Amino acid sequence: MTLGRPQKFDTDTVLEAAMNVFWAKGYEASSLQDLLKATHLSKSSLYKTFLNKEKLFEQCLLRYQDNLAKNMRVTLSEARSGVSFIEQALLENAKEAKGNSKKIGCFLLNTAVEFSQEKPSIAAIVSKSIARFESIFEEAVTLAKRNKEISGVAGTKELAQFIFNSFVGLKNRVKAGASQKEVESIVKMTIRAL
Amino acid sequence: MTLGRPQKFDTDTVLEAAMNVFWAKGYEASSLQDLLKATHLSKSSLYKTFLNKEKLFEQCLLRYQDNLAKNMRVTLSEARSGVSFIEQALLENAKEAKGNSKKIGCFLLNTAVEFSQEKPSIAAIVSKSIARFESIFEEAVTLAKRNKEISGVAGTKELAQFIFNSFVGLKNRVKAGASQKEVESIVKMTIRAL
Repeated sequence: MTLGRPQKFDTDTVLEAAMNVFWAKGYEASSLQDLLKATHLSKSSLYKTFLNKEKLFEQCLLRYQDNLAKNMRVTLSEARSGVSFIEQALLENAKEAKGNSKKIGCFLLNTAVEFSQEKPSIAAIVSKSIARFESIFEEAVTLAKRNKEISGVAGTKELAQFIFNSFVGLKNRVKAGASQKEVESIVKMTIRAL
Repeated sequence: MTLGRPQKFDTDTVLEAAMNVFWAKGYEASSLQDLLKATHLSKSSLYKTFLNKEKLFEQCLLRYQDNLAKNMRVTLSEARSGVSFIEQALLENAKEAKGNSKKIGCFLLNTAVEFSQEKPSIAAIVSKSIARFESIFEEAVTLAKRNKEISGVAGTKELAQFIFNSFVGLKNRVKAGASQKEVESIVKMTIRAL
């Protein structure tokens, strides 16, 4: 750990490191000591740049959802089939949950669970992020409807919300030990329902 | 807080109080002090009866899932329609998530998120509980198939897993701010997919 180092660091790297701490331990259990160790920042640099633990957390959350949403948008813009995009998004999401045993579930959804509506600034970020992901699924549904890939009896928004609910469920199910076979079956049934 | 009180207490009341602490704060953030205060037990009584914090937590978890599963079984045994049971279970579950802002989501699923596969004894309780809930949904699906309430192209087990995934998703979605309208629409689409 370097003490008193001037603020010469890459913000993205710092946020990645801090996010990993928050993700593994949750917000409350992440101590300043943990965050300094992981980010290699001095206490003064950390406070100078991010103001406090809560603001640092907000930055991590914004960065996480932004990266995830951008990646999904790129994939969607290249997708020729709405259904295959949705299928991939659901399967990838389940895979991510399985990846690192220290990082439990999805950073964004864990945050939603940990804070619920207690911290308004964080609840607002969570809400906006969810709306953003649902809007990506809405576009995918629109594409799937246009291509006549789905029957699409229900409204586009409702279908997107239904897909996102399945997405959220899968994150949790995988972390609680669901098998790959179970994941695939749930994805298949979600798609068939559209 | 009574100190040194002999172990004359109602285990169920103690477990309810301890569970509320764990539920509101999570396992790690719940201190011995919090637990003693909530349960009105002395330190020695608590350790004598429950051995340690982890064992106390396990007892809370077992009691929670047992009560929930028993209630669901009673409701199912009285249900004349498999679909209406499933619909009610999904809607009730969403309502519970909304109830108490301190108790975030479902005690069992939060546990799954917090511990993932880290503590084998707890992961085992979570797995068994999930299997128990899925088996209740399997019975409901069987009933619905028998009554020809659903098309039931997919296997009973797969349908039950799909319903449970929706159940898990809804818990999280409600806590992250989903509206009642959104909940109802997701439940409707889940039922239609069976």
